[in-house]
Amino acid sequence: MGTTQLESVPEPKYWHLKTVLSDALDSEFAVGEILPNERELAARFGVARATLRQALEQLELEGRLQRRRGVGTTVAPPRVGVDVGTERNAWPGTAGGAWQAVECGETAPPAAVARLLDTDRDEEVYTVRRIRMTRGQPVAAELLYVPAGSVPGLTAIGAPSGAARARAVLRELQHLALEGQDRAVELGSARADDAKQLDRLPGAPVLVVTTRYYAEGRTVAVAVATYRADTCRLTFGETGTVEITHHEEQRAAS
Amino acid sequence: MGTTQLESVPEPKYWHLKTVLSDALDSEFAVGEILPNERELAARFGVARATLRQALEQLELEGRLQRRRGVGTTVAPPRVGVDVGTERNAWPGTAGGAWQAVECGETAPPAAVARLLDTDRDEEVYTVRRIRMTRGQPVAAELLYVPAGSVPGLTAIGAPSGAARARAVLRELQHLALEGQDRAVELGSARADDAKQLDRLPGAPVLVVTTRYYAEGRTVAVAVATYRADTCRLTFGETGTVEITHHEEQRAAS
Repeated sequence: MGTTQLESVPEPKYWHLKTVLSDALDSEFAVGEILPNERELAARFGVARATLRQALEQLELEGRLQRRRGVGTTVAPPRVGVDVGTERNAWPGTAGGAWQAVECGETAPPAAVARLLDTDRDEEVYTVRRIRMTRGQPVAAELLYVPAGSVPGLTAIGAPSGAARARAVLRELQHLALEGQDRAVELGSARADDAKQLDRLPGAPVLVVTTRYYAEGRTVAVAVATYRADTCRLTFGETGTVEITHHEEQRAAS
Repeated sequence: MGTTQLESVPEPKYWHLKTVLSDALDSEFAVGEILPNERELAARFGVARATLRQALEQLELEGRLQRRRGVGTTVAPPRVGVDVGTERNAWPGTAGGAWQAVECGETAPPAAVARLLDTDRDEEVYTVRRIRMTRGQPVAAELLYVPAGSVPGLTAIGAPSGAARARAVLRELQHLALEGQDRAVELGSARADDAKQLDRLPGAPVLVVTTRYYAEGRTVAVAVATYRADTCRLTFGETGTVEITHHEEQRAAS
């Protein structure tokens, strides 16, 4: 693919505008700055409001702009790299400070989760809600689903609900020998409860990370984590990458 | 988080409608079936057209519905799990049949890629365009950026452009000893050229996977792959997951 071939692809009008706007964001606006209103922007770039709105939507999808109620459209800071890879080969709750256990409950999981856990449709399982904080901001909300059979010692533990109960479930889970896990990442929309914890509107685009934990030859727990798609970049680190990630974080923070 | 607390979260009207519609899709419609038009649906569920449209947008984000020009809104098949993990620790082009090299060019990469490669702003690098096919459908389009310094033997190779040249770049790259790689996944919107290859409209939501390849203590190549967010679930397999993945693929295909 040479430059010539790229140029030969016909691009819709809002797409060209998006590129022009993106350059303007780089050169004229600071992170956090509020953009002029749509009418002014449309006039400045000589485009229809509908075209402008499409271009703004693209830039929002790409994480360049944020729209907030009562504030307007602001220039977004660079996305934060959130490492999903370091948690590999560890039970939830053992990896340290990134996640906070919030509460614990019992519920019949969604059909897709029940299928992964191989539980019956109406069988209740323990749920542990956790929140992941990065630089003081919530970046992900997670529900961990744990069938009672995976944590047989739990009935002996006193805490009836809340964060203490959530931590008790995580501790019990660690009595099993973790055999492996796999992850899937897909696009989704924020459920009302997750959206509230992530300071987003329900239905906002999110990256859904589903993790299956294996022990004793079967799936013993499933975590469904919802990451803010506007502010997060999920990183899967391999060898020799730690320094580079740090370097980038510093750049993003400066 | 118990059922009670979930219910106490106020949900917007379109969200409730989305749940109702989602159940209707499960029970009344087959994959590929065309939905009644918006007016009929709004009347059936007793909601305003705007509310209906919001609910349909959510279901599209979640991969339950597809909207295609000239066809209408259809029930989407389950998302296809596309394994991103198996390519770990291998150069692009060595992993076998999933990717097809399409063409080769030279271009100054986008600023973000130039930063990762540590090349100058206007320095041209080789680009290799690849397409990933799953079940006969294009699921991802990739541009691999390779600085000339990473493939010093390439100047001796004859093919001036096209797929043969692309494969020559990949072969040359494999002369280096791969030291590691890392990946990042984020939400993006399809560029016009990628959209065309993925049979999508420019600006459609995509999952952008950026892979950095390390050799000789530096980043020697960067791949930016654009996966269809509507039809793909990116999977990162670990131990003991192969059979389960197959099982699910079969279920999805049946």
